[in-house]
Amino acid sequence: MRAIRFAPGEVELLDQTKLPHETVWEKFTSADEVAAAIRDMKVRGAPAIGAAAAFGLAAEARRLQGDSQLREKLLEAAKRLRSARPTAVNLAQALDEMLSVLTQTGDDALADALYAKAVAIADADVATNRRIGAFGADVIGQHGGHILTHCNTGSLATVEYGTALGVIRALHERGTLRHVYVDETRPYLQGARLTAYELAEEGIPFDIITDSTAGYAMAQGWVDAVVVGADRIARNGDTANKIGTYTLAVLAQYHGIPFYVAAPTTTLDLATATGRDIPIEERHANEVTHMFGRPIAPIGASARHLAFDVTPGALITGIITECGVAKPPYIESLAEMAGRHGA
Amino acid sequence: MRAIRFAPGEVELLDQTKLPHETVWEKFTSADEVAAAIRDMKVRGAPAIGAAAAFGLAAEARRLQGDSQLREKLLEAAKRLRSARPTAVNLAQALDEMLSVLTQTGDDALADALYAKAVAIADADVATNRRIGAFGADVIGQHGGHILTHCNTGSLATVEYGTALGVIRALHERGTLRHVYVDETRPYLQGARLTAYELAEEGIPFDIITDSTAGYAMAQGWVDAVVVGADRIARNGDTANKIGTYTLAVLAQYHGIPFYVAAPTTTLDLATATGRDIPIEERHANEVTHMFGRPIAPIGASARHLAFDVTPGALITGIITECGVAKPPYIESLAEMAGRHGA
Repeated sequence: MRAIRFAPGEVELLDQTKLPHETVWEKFTSADEVAAAIRDMKVRGAPAIGAAAAFGLAAEARRLQGDSQLREKLLEAAKRLRSARPTAVNLAQALDEMLSVLTQTGDDALADALYAKAVAIADADVATNRRIGAFGADVIGQHGGHILTHCNTGSLATVEYGTALGVIRALHERGTLRHVYVDETRPYLQGARLTAYELAEEGIPFDIITDSTAGYAMAQGWVDAVVVGADRIARNGDTANKIGTYTLAVLAQYHGIPFYVAAPTTTLDLATATGRDIPIEERHANEVTHMFGRPIAPIGASARHLAFDVTPGALITGIITECGVAKPPYIESLAEMAGRHGA
Repeated sequence: MRAIRFAPGEVELLDQTKLPHETVWEKFTSADEVAAAIRDMKVRGAPAIGAAAAFGLAAEARRLQGDSQLREKLLEAAKRLRSARPTAVNLAQALDEMLSVLTQTGDDALADALYAKAVAIADADVATNRRIGAFGADVIGQHGGHILTHCNTGSLATVEYGTALGVIRALHERGTLRHVYVDETRPYLQGARLTAYELAEEGIPFDIITDSTAGYAMAQGWVDAVVVGADRIARNGDTANKIGTYTLAVLAQYHGIPFYVAAPTTTLDLATATGRDIPIEERHANEVTHMFGRPIAPIGASARHLAFDVTPGALITGIITECGVAKPPYIESLAEMAGRHGA
């Protein structure tokens, strides 16, 4: 399954706000349209928004072909794409890779070169996720076959296969997966809507639970291991991910359950020292107080909608990347992973 | 604010499944109608369902007045009311109190005597909650003015004033309350719908947060104390309450934040040794996978809907009752509270 399709000059996204009940593809031919789609969460998931932004910038280059201010306008467009969502670092990393093309290519060849680079980013993501899946299945398979996960980290959050959900897919392919508990993941319900959709499609046995049920599920012995994705990982292993991840990590430690993060090395942000330096996006309260456009709270009720939280590296058993599994102390192991990636 | 009105032969309930957007009162004149309303959660909250059941049984006695099998039928009706929901012990306790009238009263006077007993139960609940509020404000006020609560434990969960929300009301009356964080409390959203409604009516400043945000809120230093209600408290302090309570208690301990339970002594079940002996109601998965009658997960997706969880006494800083605040070891302090109540 893929939620992103591309061709020179355009990118199509499966509108994830409408899944699983409506399958609506939307076509975009400019950077600003893609930036809006990222902001509105039609595409979400750190690797997926990186790839979508890359195709958005490539489409923008084709749209502006022949413009005398092509490069300035592309730099401006990249800036607007970059600011569409602040927390995931993959978005910035993908754009940096795209912009590196500008210094190497003449104006006439730019649209083709940027498109080729976007395709390369997308292809690399799929290969990366397969390797994350294999490393993750090796390490998590030792703990048992009952896995709890949060949010959506599958084909819909990446270009294909997934990060944490890629690990679950790999366990399933090896025949060692028994059952998945999926946090519904309020307020956007990425677990109930998207992860359940992907698991059902794969024939993987699962139960959706409300987010607050995770503690009880662990206390009952239902969970052998937790695996989640990441939007940005600081040098010391502190990990920004979907709101609720931190709560799961505290619960896992209390119950002696291993807690893993699965993410490509592009999610590592070694320039960021600790989680305190990661910007946490706060979104509109309406996204908490309304559902299907209908209010679920009294009109005018105040709410906070933090989109992410930060889990300290100290609560993370291992960080599964395409270059292997980093273990504490992360200050050393993550630098080594980044080195392997660069090598 | 009251969500229960009564008169001889009838009880009216404010349908809590429709709040805060629709104010629908429904009138009941038989025990089975009230049992169905409890099962369907038109009335919820441990003390409120106890009082509703009492008025249901009183109405049944009036409906059956003159019936030759009056007593047998009332015993049967009490049994059906008792089984409407399994976890909260207040329901069983209120019915036991009602049935004690049967042994003391002749057939002709039974309807009046049962109604008088139901009124006494309702009146006692209000007085009890005021005392819980005062004791709770004394003890929680020491920790600070930023309080996190879960589910609804206010006027809508009791006859009036509330248990944990009664403590919050008392803090507000004393001028020491600063801010309340209200877990939305999936799947029924009692926090977002009902607690927010009561807080807005009182002019108490609050923010709704998704359940999974609680950990982040504590890590950010937003929370000075947690106070929740209870559906049943075992002899050793293990407390059954709305699903998610256990998660909050683990989080509170991890962050060194005091965690209090507020409940009348009628919620104590000293005949139950530990939380393992408390039956945990599992409700229909549809209540998780659907909202406003619309699916929020793929059609046919499997879900678990545990309505309650059990928090070990070891995680509870204090249990606030109308007779004082019990502290660990609960095996001693709760027995003493029950004794004070009986005295």
